Amino acid sequence: MPFTRFDRYVDRHANAFVERLQALCRMPSVAARGTGMRAVAETVEQLMQRVGAGTRTFKLGSGFPIVFGEFGAGTHCFVVYGHYDVQPVGSLSEWAVGPFAASVLDDKLYARGASNSKGDLVARLAAVEAYQKTFGKLPICLRFVVEGEDGLGSPSLYRFTREHAEMLRADGCIWDDGYKDTKERLVISLGFKGISFVELRAHGARTDLHSKWGGIVPNPAWRLVQALATVVSPKGVITIDGFTSHVAPIAPEDNQSLKLIELDEAGLKREFKIGGWVRGMSGRALAKELIFGPTCTICGIHTGHTEAGAKTVLPGMAVARLDFRLVPDLTSHIVIKLLRHHLDVRDFKDIEVIELASAPYAKSSINSVVARAATNAAVEVYEAPALVYPLDPASGPVGAVCGVSAPPVPVVSFGISYAGSNPHAPNENIRLDDFTQGVKYFGRVIHHLAQIAKEDNRERQNIENVVTLGKI
Amino acid sequence: MPFTRFDRYVDRHANAFVERLQALCRMPSVAARGTGMRAVAETVEQLMQRVGAGTRTFKLGSGFPIVFGEFGAGTHCFVVYGHYDVQPVGSLSEWAVGPFAASVLDDKLYARGASNSKGDLVARLAAVEAYQKTFGKLPICLRFVVEGEDGLGSPSLYRFTREHAEMLRADGCIWDDGYKDTKERLVISLGFKGISFVELRAHGARTDLHSKWGGIVPNPAWRLVQALATVVSPKGVITIDGFTSHVAPIAPEDNQSLKLIELDEAGLKREFKIGGWVRGMSGRALAKELIFGPTCTICGIHTGHTEAGAKTVLPGMAVARLDFRLVPDLTSHIVIKLLRHHLDVRDFKDIEVIELASAPYAKSSINSVVARAATNAAVEVYEAPALVYPLDPASGPVGAVCGVSAPPVPVVSFGISYAGSNPHAPNENIRLDDFTQGVKYFGRVIHHLAQIAKEDNRERQNIENVVTLGKI
Repeated sequence: MPFTRFDRYVDRHANAFVERLQALCRMPSVAARGTGMRAVAETVEQLMQRVGAGTRTFKLGSGFPIVFGEFGAGTHCFVVYGHYDVQPVGSLSEWAVGPFAASVLDDKLYARGASNSKGDLVARLAAVEAYQKTFGKLPICLRFVVEGEDGLGSPSLYRFTREHAEMLRADGCIWDDGYKDTKERLVISLGFKGISFVELRAHGARTDLHSKWGGIVPNPAWRLVQALATVVSPKGVITIDGFTSHVAPIAPEDNQSLKLIELDEAGLKREFKIGGWVRGMSGRALAKELIFGPTCTICGIHTGHTEAGAKTVLPGMAVARLDFRLVPDLTSHIVIKLLRHHLDVRDFKDIEVIELASAPYAKSSINSVVARAATNAAVEVYEAPALVYPLDPASGPVGAVCGVSAPPVPVVSFGISYAGSNPHAPNENIRLDDFTQGVKYFGRVIHHLAQIAKEDNRERQNIENVVTLGKI
Repeated sequence: MPFTRFDRYVDRHANAFVERLQALCRMPSVAARGTGMRAVAETVEQLMQRVGAGTRTFKLGSGFPIVFGEFGAGTHCFVVYGHYDVQPVGSLSEWAVGPFAASVLDDKLYARGASNSKGDLVARLAAVEAYQKTFGKLPICLRFVVEGEDGLGSPSLYRFTREHAEMLRADGCIWDDGYKDTKERLVISLGFKGISFVELRAHGARTDLHSKWGGIVPNPAWRLVQALATVVSPKGVITIDGFTSHVAPIAPEDNQSLKLIELDEAGLKREFKIGGWVRGMSGRALAKELIFGPTCTICGIHTGHTEAGAKTVLPGMAVARLDFRLVPDLTSHIVIKLLRHHLDVRDFKDIEVIELASAPYAKSSINSVVARAATNAAVEVYEAPALVYPLDPASGPVGAVCGVSAPPVPVVSFGISYAGSNPHAPNENIRLDDFTQGVKYFGRVIHHLAQIAKEDNRERQNIENVVTLGKI
């Protein structure tokens, strides 16, 4: 299918699309502050309606609205995830321009939310518009689900997955995390790690005591340290009994993808100011660990007194927060059960284990409809072939969104950002060329989804024919 | 020597002494707030002058003044320690009366500082007055050294021990920590543990990172936990290489004293709300551990994020504060050297060890002049015999004050408080009878110090005679 007319439409309207994005970026929607959220949600709904979507807005409890918009129709349906909230701006003095001015400098649009991820939302809607204007009605059904609580851990979206599961059942899901790496390769992820966020608590005396009692009153800080020391080895290996046996082997196709992934080790080490990686890893092993390694991270410990001033106390309580990043086939339930048992048999029954939050992993095959559409389309738009991450080491509500059916809805994730987009830092920005290219790319993704859907239907037809013949 | 006239004087002036104390308690002198400190120091100086002391006030740097007052003369000289600053009042709503109203209720004086330790200072000065009025000039020299920074870790006093060591060289030192226990026994301590307060620091990335990096970026919290886990065993035993070999054996006389010490285990367990003691200890072993056990207490750990809200970070730094309570013959220098070596040989060279503060222990023999005077005098005033603690498990500047000579000045500590005095809590109070009894007791301590000084001089004379004879 020739995209000449489509691309011409996009180029002709590129400025208008950017202006649409600028207008959206000028509406601050920091979820953590919570002001102006409803106005931005309404604007998102109008943007969808303008492109012809049937829309609905869901308000769950006291959360920020989830905007739902449906385009096209067909045998196949795909969920397109987005969020209209943005990260806090952080230190204003570190911004070169106002975070909500949406200024264009050197062909880049600077704004909080431009990269993460109002730019993706506007680009995708623009692609739908261009597709409809040049090819007509979408041959597949696209369901945009746009939440406003990405920065808050998506409580409404989790509730939505439970209360409106039927609206998320689909043939595939397209997420909005992604960027071009330092070598200008589009990064496509086939999923995200899950997470199990737990708190360990040790209790001692009813309050902090004078530390002269240190020799005879049990110290919960020592208990916690001793318990934690059994969970991960000094080499950084998770040593919870039975943990490794729940980690699925890496599929051959994913091992193939892994071979192409090279971390910018020197650049990252400079950025983080670290001398080396865990266990002195490097190269293939390092990338494999980042992508397919389950993690157990101490995210925080607090006990006793550590503020200014010498205060020698024997703490009354000690708390540690751990997060486990979950790879197939780990679940939060499994992790907590194993951890509890591990501590119990080591005489740490007194250490409380509390689940604070969790999210399942999402993992697609490279042969899934969405993965094939995304990778095929990339070849047609981007100079370098896309770099496929079999799993993104980050986590989010994606596993819950895709978990509405069994087997889960396959997911793929990409975006219009680049390596210098600073999505969580000052001077968040996107390159305008990436934005326009993203519109063209998404148009081709729609096309490939439709193509694969057609093949799929043909196959199903064949199967039905076989079945019919069998009846004779 | 009959104390009839002395006691009559004390009884006749008991109300006046209490009023003197009330006036002092009505002057707030919370060192942590720092207001009114100079006025209280001046009042203390006037109280001393009124009893006939030659006084001097030392202002070291920006610290609160140290008031010095000397009484009497003789071959023997004793330092009497006191402090005019008081603890913060804490939660006002928990006080039954105003903390600076110095109200008398049920024959108890309620005031912040009444127990800790304006009451001791006023009682001791009252005893000097009564002694002078009834027996004449003191036959020994008493040097009152009264600081205003007990609540701040006594920085000026430490400096004083270095810059004015000659003023502290003495035949004994009398400290002001002490009380009657729940069985109404006067507690006399023959010293205090030292302290080594250190910070351990582990460093990772330059800042907290997204915890998706948990599998490959070194986590300083894990490093710290692993390092700490080698320092104290799960049973609560200090496992630093070579540590135990520096702990002196307990002297036979101290073992004798230990036999009489019984902790109110049930009462303390109720107070602390704990189910048991470290290693399930009880009875003699528990008391011995409290008094003669060196300690290593985690006083605080801080790393990453532990406040409200789920924030999954990989910390950039992890900090732990430990305090070691030092028994003979441990020093802060030894502890830090051993700890450093212990960590180094276990591949924890990256963990920084920083000394935040330290104080040497102070330990007297029960046969020292001050110990004999204090125990002999107690028999004459208190119903039950005094309970001798060979070492107080707390620490302070006492080791530095006594360390101005070699061997150190022997120290003894006692006070006019009782088990319900709440010296660091709301409703701090003393019983008026204890106060008056304390005045009578201190008069007898002066007497016994003079007696022992006289015997001492006689012995010295004999030795000189022997030497003279030897010359023939």
